[in-house]
Amino acid sequence: MQRTVFFISDGTAITTETLGHSLLTQFPNIEFTQERIPFVSDSGKARDAVLKINAACKMDGATAIVILSIVDKEARQIIKNSDAITLDLFADFIDTLEQALGVKRQATVGQVHSVANLERYEERMEATNYALSHDDGISLSYDHADLILVGISRSGKTPTCLYMGLHFGVKAANYPLTESDLEKQRLPTFLRRHKKKIIGLMIDADRLAQIRETRRPSSRYASLKNCHWEVDAAESLLRAEGTPILHTTHSSIEEIASRVLLQLGLQREMF
Amino acid sequence: MQRTVFFISDGTAITTETLGHSLLTQFPNIEFTQERIPFVSDSGKARDAVLKINAACKMDGATAIVILSIVDKEARQIIKNSDAITLDLFADFIDTLEQALGVKRQATVGQVHSVANLERYEERMEATNYALSHDDGISLSYDHADLILVGISRSGKTPTCLYMGLHFGVKAANYPLTESDLEKQRLPTFLRRHKKKIIGLMIDADRLAQIRETRRPSSRYASLKNCHWEVDAAESLLRAEGTPILHTTHSSIEEIASRVLLQLGLQREMF
Repeated sequence: MQRTVFFISDGTAITTETLGHSLLTQFPNIEFTQERIPFVSDSGKARDAVLKINAACKMDGATAIVILSIVDKEARQIIKNSDAITLDLFADFIDTLEQALGVKRQATVGQVHSVANLERYEERMEATNYALSHDDGISLSYDHADLILVGISRSGKTPTCLYMGLHFGVKAANYPLTESDLEKQRLPTFLRRHKKKIIGLMIDADRLAQIRETRRPSSRYASLKNCHWEVDAAESLLRAEGTPILHTTHSSIEEIASRVLLQLGLQREMF
Repeated sequence: MQRTVFFISDGTAITTETLGHSLLTQFPNIEFTQERIPFVSDSGKARDAVLKINAACKMDGATAIVILSIVDKEARQIIKNSDAITLDLFADFIDTLEQALGVKRQATVGQVHSVANLERYEERMEATNYALSHDDGISLSYDHADLILVGISRSGKTPTCLYMGLHFGVKAANYPLTESDLEKQRLPTFLRRHKKKIIGLMIDADRLAQIRETRRPSSRYASLKNCHWEVDAAESLLRAEGTPILHTTHSSIEEIASRVLLQLGLQREMF
């Protein structure tokens, strides 16, 4: 079975697509062709989108599905009149919210991914720059860090720190445990001072070897034997230091980031 | 008026919160206290969440709002029986989808931010590493780049490239125009070969000076005069080269990323 799904919004359609994905994962046996159509903010653009939608319905010989989030009533209605079945993320909930809050909405187009609040946006950019300048032990001064991820090479530290900067405005540094740290079985002194904001990331040796192999094929670095040694040494070091440990092998960066914030009790609003 | 809003999910609750934000921006006069409660995947955790919800209702003297996305029926129902008003992102739409598709769903918990598809996840990590190793002209070999952002320092290149790696699995490099490039009024030869995948980012001189001032206060680099010169020189260089230009001053990285992909005709699924 073949179906086309459109994610259509007056903004980037990124939220619409993400929510759409979470719905579509519930139907693993259907092959979905997916298309994101962003910035559909007026009737003209809505009509262009309808041409695409109706063409897809004809091509597939099956009704397309539209996941929709548009503030403008007229544009929204034009899409809803297409040949597709529309899930309207916006209209249904906004009505419920109006009733719950007892006030009318003030229609403003696709603000969620805009720079509506410049100060908050700058916080986010600053945190991203912080992650870059405190990645992989580049800078060892952690006074301004909200948190520090510690672990061996390729345990997931860097993408998680970048994600936390970009999406939570959290200043996340990361420090790669060195062979010397592992041999001494203790964290370096400059880290011990910040113990309350440290989380250790751990990964299975098999998975680690696989990841490292694609980076440096047939190296000692990637060998299963060495990975086992590093993983065991890192785990015992972190335990000895009393550092909270998160296992990343089966987790995405969103999941790791979410667990790190939970573990440290940091409540941060998402961007 | 003061209201507490909870974003509750059996996954990271990141999608739930993002969609929630887009709804809440429509009510700018209400002060919302927001809390994300992730990983609510069973009845026990749902009951813990209800304690928090009901406490907030009492504190505020106003009904809390829950934006909910939980697959497990029992856990979902426990939250719905709390004192809050619940917007159920999952249940309403999944029923509509089942009808539209004519098949029953296969309930699987919070897959959208999991590593369900390892191959795609690795693509994403590889693209993020690509952005890091091809940031700011570190590496000038662009054969594997899906796209190259070109612009003067602080025009938004780096965070946009990281975002595109993390969320679209797109290999995005960036090259900062140097004083010598600006004076010669042409792109360096190693870039000209990749012209089809280049997008120029531009920013207003006033905004640029403001951003640079926080980085290097009172420097020539940050001076309004120098920023004006760089912006004008970059704009004329990019025009002369026939490079498509995107203005980033009033755009978030999501918006810039979305426009870049649209401009280059790259259809990529979101992570």
